Amino acid sequence: MSVMTTRRAIVRVDASRTTPGPDDLAVEAPLVLGLHGGPVLATIMRTPGHDVELAGGWLVAESGVRAAEDVIELRSCREDDTDRVDVRLREDVLPPRPRAFLTSSACGVCSADLIDLALLAAAAPYSPGFQVSAGILAGLPPAMRRQQRLFARTGSVHAAALARADGTLLTVREDIGRHNAVDKIVGWALLSGRLPLTDHLIVVSGRVSFEIVQKAVAAGAAGIVAVSAPSSLAVDLCRTHGVVLAGLVRDGHLNLYAGAELVR
Amino acid sequence: MSVMTTRRAIVRVDASRTTPGPDDLAVEAPLVLGLHGGPVLATIMRTPGHDVELAGGWLVAESGVRAAEDVIELRSCREDDTDRVDVRLREDVLPPRPRAFLTSSACGVCSADLIDLALLAAAAPYSPGFQVSAGILAGLPPAMRRQQRLFARTGSVHAAALARADGTLLTVREDIGRHNAVDKIVGWALLSGRLPLTDHLIVVSGRVSFEIVQKAVAAGAAGIVAVSAPSSLAVDLCRTHGVVLAGLVRDGHLNLYAGAELVR
Repeated sequence: MSVMTTRRAIVRVDASRTTPGPDDLAVEAPLVLGLHGGPVLATIMRTPGHDVELAGGWLVAESGVRAAEDVIELRSCREDDTDRVDVRLREDVLPPRPRAFLTSSACGVCSADLIDLALLAAAAPYSPGFQVSAGILAGLPPAMRRQQRLFARTGSVHAAALARADGTLLTVREDIGRHNAVDKIVGWALLSGRLPLTDHLIVVSGRVSFEIVQKAVAAGAAGIVAVSAPSSLAVDLCRTHGVVLAGLVRDGHLNLYAGAELVR
Repeated sequence: MSVMTTRRAIVRVDASRTTPGPDDLAVEAPLVLGLHGGPVLATIMRTPGHDVELAGGWLVAESGVRAAEDVIELRSCREDDTDRVDVRLREDVLPPRPRAFLTSSACGVCSADLIDLALLAAAAPYSPGFQVSAGILAGLPPAMRRQQRLFARTGSVHAAALARADGTLLTVREDIGRHNAVDKIVGWALLSGRLPLTDHLIVVSGRVSFEIVQKAVAAGAAGIVAVSAPSSLAVDLCRTHGVVLAGLVRDGHLNLYAGAELVR
């Protein structure tokens, strides 16, 4: 069992008094992803737990991994006191590229990343006739919220969830990093043979930036439902890829930024 | 003048009706940082505006840049329809390393990053006798909030501010990325000859993770004041480096996670 929270002595201050006492904090610690036992692919600062899912989801966004069969092994271990997941990919699967050089040929809004993404996102995100009701979209963040146990204890972690269009919540994951929470969800789907996420929705507790959409598109999801607002690029990317984007989903209200024609 | 918001046609949904109309979104677009006119250091997804500050602050966290004199030139340009800042550093300044390989020798909580950080953070974060009042800490997030113009329009951007211990707010920056907002603040200080940020406080609108503390320590700041909660690693790093950390600063209450002895 991974340690997801830890306790520190802190001091609480309000107008009238100062109270020392213990406080539960979300753990943040490095996870090293290594390729074929050798080079480091990435060091991810994350909340421990579901590390293999995190690695799997990260690979879907950053490499050609699209199904469990593309991965020979994801092996979780501890080396030099650091958590590590060693990745072995099938030889014909496009491996992740070092991030720092990812976008050397960036060309504005349609940067190299986006072009790659278009090539990789082969699956249509929904079946013919797919529709989702606004009421179900509005109900997803509160349903996820009830399962955010780490947030309830620490107030400092994001969450992501996977849901079917009928409102069934399949799984919820929490992490200090909002991208990691999405990676854990996608990794769970990858490892349970559910990719691509055709007709499925990804629910996120925060804002929607380019990278969140990139992850959803790579996973083949039909939509994103977010508690906060999206960026311009997130909206444009969802429109390009036919992904439903509902944001500012609060108290029964929501904004449809993309795919409004699929919402009844 | 950079375009920080843009308008899209969206659909607003509530229990009784559906209303199409325009909506203001925070712009997210790539900024390429290039070194000496050549290799790409990083592609940062950011809200346009203050790009040179963003580049400067990023360099403080990622390289040996500690004063304006370490930088020969930060030149903002547009190339192939993409915003770019070309960086020229003095020859004796440690250049940034590619991120993907940054922590290949990570060793747990004190990963390679942290060790480097300890070497780089030479300046003491405050003068002898430095103190700050809890009342001033509590007042900083609301003071920053009043200057978050982009947030007021879009609901989707983070902010960071630089303040003196007497509560004077020196500057506020907003960005779709919370790390970017801090980089813009530090870059502003770098370019105006205010580094190290001895006796100064960095105010942030979100959570405090390892990376936010890393940026504050590299800039030599005395403290971090956050609207949300910190991670375990953020608290530990602040304690190691003697940085005051106030979090969950809301409605006159706050938690002191580190440096409580400096708060009266």
